[in-house]
Amino acid sequence: MDQVFILHGPNLNLLGKREPAIYGSLALDEINTRLTAFGTGLDFEIVTYQSNHEGDLVDQLHEAGETAAGVVMNAAAFTHTSVAIRDAITAIEPPVIEVHLSNVHAREPFRHHSWIAPVCVGSISGFGWRSYMLALQALSEIIRDKRS
Amino acid sequence: MDQVFILHGPNLNLLGKREPAIYGSLALDEINTRLTAFGTGLDFEIVTYQSNHEGDLVDQLHEAGETAAGVVMNAAAFTHTSVAIRDAITAIEPPVIEVHLSNVHAREPFRHHSWIAPVCVGSISGFGWRSYMLALQALSEIIRDKRS
Amino acid sequence: MDQVFILHGPNLNLLGKREPAIYGSLALDEINTRLTAFGTGLDFEIVTYQSNHEGDLVDQLHEAGETAAGVVMNAAAFTHTSVAIRDAITAIEPPVIEVHLSNVHAREPFRHHSWIAPVCVGSISGFGWRSYMLALQALSEIIRDKRS
Amino acid sequence: MDQVFILHGPNLNLLGKREPAIYGSLALDEINTRLTAFGTGLDFEIVTYQSNHEGDLVDQLHEAGETAAGVVMNAAAFTHTSVAIRDAITAIEPPVIEVHLSNVHAREPFRHHSWIAPVCVGSISGFGWRSYMLALQALSEIIRDKRS
Amino acid sequence: MDQVFILHGPNLNLLGKREPAIYGSLALDEINTRLTAFGTGLDFEIVTYQSNHEGDLVDQLHEAGETAAGVVMNAAAFTHTSVAIRDAITAIEPPVIEVHLSNVHAREPFRHHSWIAPVCVGSISGFGWRSYMLALQALSEIIRDKRS
Amino acid sequence: MDQVFILHGPNLNLLGKREPAIYGSLALDEINTRLTAFGTGLDFEIVTYQSNHEGDLVDQLHEAGETAAGVVMNAAAFTHTSVAIRDAITAIEPPVIEVHLSNVHAREPFRHHSWIAPVCVGSISGFGWRSYMLALQALSEIIRDKRS
Amino acid sequence: MDQVFILHGPNLNLLGKREPAIYGSLALDEINTRLTAFGTGLDFEIVTYQSNHEGDLVDQLHEAGETAAGVVMNAAAFTHTSVAIRDAITAIEPPVIEVHLSNVHAREPFRHHSWIAPVCVGSISGFGWRSYMLALQALSEIIRDKRS
Amino acid sequence: MDQVFILHGPNLNLLGKREPAIYGSLALDEINTRLTAFGTGLDFEIVTYQSNHEGDLVDQLHEAGETAAGVVMNAAAFTHTSVAIRDAITAIEPPVIEVHLSNVHAREPFRHHSWIAPVCVGSISGFGWRSYMLALQALSEIIRDKRS
Amino acid sequence: MDQVFILHGPNLNLLGKREPAIYGSLALDEINTRLTAFGTGLDFEIVTYQSNHEGDLVDQLHEAGETAAGVVMNAAAFTHTSVAIRDAITAIEPPVIEVHLSNVHAREPFRHHSWIAPVCVGSISGFGWRSYMLALQALSEIIRDKRS
Amino acid sequence: MDQVFILHGPNLNLLGKREPAIYGSLALDEINTRLTAFGTGLDFEIVTYQSNHEGDLVDQLHEAGETAAGVVMNAAAFTHTSVAIRDAITAIEPPVIEVHLSNVHAREPFRHHSWIAPVCVGSISGFGWRSYMLALQALSEIIRDKRS
Amino acid sequence: MDQVFILHGPNLNLLGKREPAIYGSLALDEINTRLTAFGTGLDFEIVTYQSNHEGDLVDQLHEAGETAAGVVMNAAAFTHTSVAIRDAITAIEPPVIEVHLSNVHAREPFRHHSWIAPVCVGSISGFGWRSYMLALQALSEIIRDKRS
Amino acid sequence: MDQVFILHGPNLNLLGKREPAIYGSLALDEINTRLTAFGTGLDFEIVTYQSNHEGDLVDQLHEAGETAAGVVMNAAAFTHTSVAIRDAITAIEPPVIEVHLSNVHAREPFRHHSWIAPVCVGSISGFGWRSYMLALQALSEIIRDKRS
Repeated sequence: MDQVFILHGPNLNLLGKREPAIYGSLALDEINTRLTAFGTGLDFEIVTYQSNHEGDLVDQLHEAGETAAGVVMNAAAFTHTSVAIRDAITAIEPPVIEVHLSNVHAREPFRHHSWIAPVCVGSISGFGWRSYMLALQALSEIIRDKRS
Repeated sequence: MDQVFILHGPNLNLLGKREPAIYGSLALDEINTRLTAFGTGLDFEIVTYQSNHEGDLVDQLHEAGETAAGVVMNAAAFTHTSVAIRDAITAIEPPVIEVHLSNVHAREPFRHHSWIAPVCVGSISGFGWRSYMLALQALSEIIRDKRS
Repeated sequence: MDQVFILHGPNLNLLGKREPAIYGSLALDEINTRLTAFGTGLDFEIVTYQSNHEGDLVDQLHEAGETAAGVVMNAAAFTHTSVAIRDAITAIEPPVIEVHLSNVHAREPFRHHSWIAPVCVGSISGFGWRSYMLALQALSEIIRDKRS
Repeated sequence: MDQVFILHGPNLNLLGKREPAIYGSLALDEINTRLTAFGTGLDFEIVTYQSNHEGDLVDQLHEAGETAAGVVMNAAAFTHTSVAIRDAITAIEPPVIEVHLSNVHAREPFRHHSWIAPVCVGSISGFGWRSYMLALQALSEIIRDKRS
Repeated sequence: MDQVFILHGPNLNLLGKREPAIYGSLALDEINTRLTAFGTGLDFEIVTYQSNHEGDLVDQLHEAGETAAGVVMNAAAFTHTSVAIRDAITAIEPPVIEVHLSNVHAREPFRHHSWIAPVCVGSISGFGWRSYMLALQALSEIIRDKRS
Repeated sequence: MDQVFILHGPNLNLLGKREPAIYGSLALDEINTRLTAFGTGLDFEIVTYQSNHEGDLVDQLHEAGETAAGVVMNAAAFTHTSVAIRDAITAIEPPVIEVHLSNVHAREPFRHHSWIAPVCVGSISGFGWRSYMLALQALSEIIRDKRS
Repeated sequence: MDQVFILHGPNLNLLGKREPAIYGSLALDEINTRLTAFGTGLDFEIVTYQSNHEGDLVDQLHEAGETAAGVVMNAAAFTHTSVAIRDAITAIEPPVIEVHLSNVHAREPFRHHSWIAPVCVGSISGFGWRSYMLALQALSEIIRDKRS
Repeated sequence: MDQVFILHGPNLNLLGKREPAIYGSLALDEINTRLTAFGTGLDFEIVTYQSNHEGDLVDQLHEAGETAAGVVMNAAAFTHTSVAIRDAITAIEPPVIEVHLSNVHAREPFRHHSWIAPVCVGSISGFGWRSYMLALQALSEIIRDKRS
Repeated sequence: MDQVFILHGPNLNLLGKREPAIYGSLALDEINTRLTAFGTGLDFEIVTYQSNHEGDLVDQLHEAGETAAGVVMNAAAFTHTSVAIRDAITAIEPPVIEVHLSNVHAREPFRHHSWIAPVCVGSISGFGWRSYMLALQALSEIIRDKRS
Repeated sequence: MDQVFILHGPNLNLLGKREPAIYGSLALDEINTRLTAFGTGLDFEIVTYQSNHEGDLVDQLHEAGETAAGVVMNAAAFTHTSVAIRDAITAIEPPVIEVHLSNVHAREPFRHHSWIAPVCVGSISGFGWRSYMLALQALSEIIRDKRS
Repeated sequence: MDQVFILHGPNLNLLGKREPAIYGSLALDEINTRLTAFGTGLDFEIVTYQSNHEGDLVDQLHEAGETAAGVVMNAAAFTHTSVAIRDAITAIEPPVIEVHLSNVHAREPFRHHSWIAPVCVGSISGFGWRSYMLALQALSEIIRDKRS
Repeated sequence: MDQVFILHGPNLNLLGKREPAIYGSLALDEINTRLTAFGTGLDFEIVTYQSNHEGDLVDQLHEAGETAAGVVMNAAAFTHTSVAIRDAITAIEPPVIEVHLSNVHAREPFRHHSWIAPVCVGSISGFGWRSYMLALQALSEIIRDKRS
């Protein structure tokens, strides 16, 4: 059974409370529960993690590099400012998929630039919590492809 | 049964032949066959269309505006140059999802800017032909949500 | 009786349906009818044409170059992207007037740049369908001046 | 009878003498006479005013805000430098139309940017003194629309 | 008793009438009355002045340079365009504090740049008429510090 | 009694030692003591917090979102680099006021841009430790206004 | 006998009539006749094609990809705006040479950027119709080199 | 005897008092006295004028256009912000020479751009009050050349 | 015996595993061992520290400010994003030398900008682990110079 | 018999040795021999010259201005940095053609800008040593045209 | 008797022949003769020097640093490209005055930037050969001031 | 015994005299003497060379390409302007190390960009004449590594 890390960046602990018009009304716990269920259906062992600390997310990526078959990452605000997370993604082997709840391209211009997109396998944004779900599905196919 | 348009932009008729390292080795016909099958499984009537002419794609979007429940669009090169396609997406009601075969953010800088992303519901890139498949799945959920 | 071409660019066929808050609620046919009537009053033979294809508009400008005394052009989205239309305007002799339904300067920054404004006689924007009407009137004076 | 202010910006007092190839050979007085006649035909009481002082034009806009039904403004050089005039236009209620004698888009790049265009109803440039005339006509329709 | 100049830039004479959602509903006179009262409590002789003319504000700064212990300045639109006011502030000795009624950083990008901020002692924005009040208080401390 | 958080960003723990010409000679503890006294006079319960960790400041803002009536924040270096703090401010309800000890606009250009100013209520800079004091006073008025 | 496509972009159908000071006084037909003769001398079967439609030129490049040994392309205005043509050149195997009648570097700045130059074998501009002739000669050598 | 206008821009009335390290310690009156004497030696009738109002300087340029043989202009801060003064210089016939007391190129970057330099005959900066003196001398030669 | 801090930024804990073509194949522990030996030879007490947390590195710099004679710092990704580390370097007294394993100038453009270089004594990059060794040697000379 | 200068810029003396994948494997001497032969066939007296000194190339251009009928110039690195060579080309009468061995547009961005292209007759790049050959041929036609 | 170097940059040896509309019709020798006469009148020993080699001009500046009381420099094209000349001016003690024959601000944008202006005493442009003459006069005053 | 070239760029012949606060008080001869001694200790035959001529430095690099095992280069002002030197470094085989006496990153912004850094092995700046010394040491290790 492959392990998959789902990493949530800063302020996502407030999901459900924070600007629901943009981010939806589901709390992070509920999203994690749904994703764990969905991931199990894909034969994944799901590990979820949220932090407001850039360094913690770098540490988690390193850990994923040791044990995981893939990573789904919503870097939130760090998407636009963190070269450290970018370098961590490059430094590890498992494929990383970038997700966003909102359509970042329809928001402020500074949200259009992603430090991590160029080093991820692919990117999915705009579908609320389902962005993660689609990423898990994509990961499942990528891992199967690699094995075959 | 909801109709869904899958629109392919310029040069995608050469898929399989053109730079397979970037775009994969499947021909467009084969991709369309797979997507039609997958879409049927989601209860969609799939209409596929490819053109090298910006105006044709605008015309198709207008037609989709009359009859379709959603659109999956790989605008290819026009992603980076066409305000006309952007305006057509704004002008119609059904939700449009942007897809790309390759991870455009990992390529030349001019491919990082999309005229259409800000007016689409969401964006999926980097998963080869499966980018379309994920988009169909997302569309299926979006349409269901709207109805409920 | 002088012939005048009125050229409408991409997505203007959807007028009345498309974002009426910005573009007004009149359909293109109705606008054309009104302009033909108004133009007749100025002793013009009015030829109207709409296309979503940049190349068609270039072709029409060439035709206008053969037979028309003037052109009124709403290049819509092509205003911001088409060097080909700009070159066509430079290549023909009859004066061309740029019109826009909406006040393009009050909208997204990319709509503030016009490829064609510098090669037109003048520019009128922000008065809905009346922008065309004012352009016809201006054209009438320009043509009279030329003759005198 | 509606009052309409026609405001002329810096250096326009030299009209007729200053670079006639660009600005035409009519003196400002003669233009004002023609516009007053034309405005009277539209049932407008025309007030004309010229100043080389930014502050005077701001003052006049405030006055127009008290008594006028509309304003036609050729801000000349201030078009490209005055946020104060822009703010004055936003601060008053009557609609303001931007006019230019020459086609500013065909001249130096710094003349392509207008601080006031985004807060005016519309913009007309390139038709010599007739730019004002067309603006009066547009104003007449806008005021009639508002009333109906 | 120290004299303090409170200088108001262009369009502030319309306060209360102009975009109350942004600038508040108090008229300038009422603000001046409140500030005079508040200033008197700080042992200041308050001189208030408003002008729509950049040159008048420069003249007033020169006058303040002769007689005042400090200046509170809301340069309004001139904040973003006037090097002359900046140079006047540098040319005089009494400390100048920049104030703004609205939070200029939350508005259009061109309002984020201030020509005068770098030559003022400090800057206060976003607190409505109380921005001035806070500035008077700050001035009171700065003047006391200087003396001790 | 309303709770107010005073948050100090990176390197402010060195106050008094670090570049006193720019930041003043008071130690952070002494500033906190003065602000607590001043805040008590305004009927505030003052909570002070300093961290060199961006994530800690995000955590504190979240906590303030639960219990505080307002926040005074000197984000120091993070002002210019942290989208995470900006997003945290947007995500919580109590008003946040940005303060700086020095006049940031008179320093290096990169200090002129603030990620957080556009999402704060207002901004005060250049008055040394009194910038905080003025912010507390402003907060007191804002809270009173909200209640009335 | 090798087939060579000579592709002419928008407005080149007006050659001879359009701004002869820049583009020369030969009509396109006459140029094609001369090039066919010259090409025959190099043992080429020459296919000439002109279109004002970007999509048509993309289609022709695809066709050239099937049958031609090389392409000479004057993309005219599309040089500066078409990523679709660039992608088509990359997608096909035969070498493409960029030509221009005028010295584009001596004209407006926007004509200095070519989307297609980086994916062509080489570039020739400024020699009127002889730019094409030189390109044919270069092509002849390139093809001979490849074979040897 | 030829009339020559010497125009001084904003804040130059403070000369001698304002930042003497940059602008020298002579008062404006003393400079005017010296220039009048020097100009008389060149057979010029010298008219000196200072204003902090952009509009006044435009008015003076217009007046110089009526009566003067040449103008020496230190536009001070308006150098960097006034298109109106630039247009006034273009609008009049007598040659205008730009002068600056300080070496503007050695100061803040925004002082490196001059709106008026491109429409003046020439430019002299960095020689204190002698910049004017050299300009008078240059003017004397230019006028003599014109006559011969 | 002087204490010297050697600080390693984010992702350097993966050295040896992470992109060895760029960063070399030595693990961080081995590099630290070599540097400690080399430093001892220079009469330094070496303290090594690595963190993926910006705040930890700021804290360490503060500690170095208390006890160390110099600092060698490879800020890795934070080089390009951290104003907090820059400010910490400015806030402490001991000299800091910037080092990089790879030649950052030969990599992506965003790696060409260093926030910390301008506040360090000097910078050494491109020599693998020996960049640190050269820095220690430089530090040894700098400290000796200071003492003499 | 017309004299033609062929000027080679810096580092071209290393041709054959320097990066043969980019510049080809022919030594400069061999290229000069071939070009002399080819030029003789066109009735040209060929003068070849190479220098790593910008000033020498300027001197040679001046000399060509005295005696030559045309110049073929590969300015190499100076293409991107030398205004002096640009000015020399403008200063002399014989036509100059710019050549490059490699396709400069397919290389680093800084090689896309040419200081000399706008003042040359035309430009040829990407055909190895044959770029020169084509230039000689073009020159032959240009000179013949001039004479007729 | 003070020695003054007059340095002429690249292409100025062609004066009189090169674009006389811009640079005048006097040959360099004649200008040097006039300047030597004029300089002698100011009690200067004039040394004139022209070179197309940047390095020669640097060498001459160094020599001037040994023996001259001042330098008048027309760096021509090197004005816009040479940091080496800028550094040479900074490295020597005698004052350097920048001169230009033409009004560089009225020409191409790249001629508006001068590398050397910020390190010269002052700058004079637009007066033909008399720019040098005015510079000599200014130098004479500067040297006298220094002595007093 | 390996030969190593130490190349000094423009104005470095003035070392000791030129701005000693920035460049130190040692004369170039003395530095060369020290470096020769130090290099001999590393078993290097040191060749030193200084020139104010870009072309001479290119020539020297070519010569080094024939005989040297490595190059230490302080390109001084040419660092920021010379593509020719960059190309020469790329064209030769021995490794080149960039050195600077001062910390260029702490000086004017234009000194932050180096044309040669990306094609050197590494870069050392800020340590006065010891920057060269450290570079020799690095070179010694690089050459030893290559041999092993």
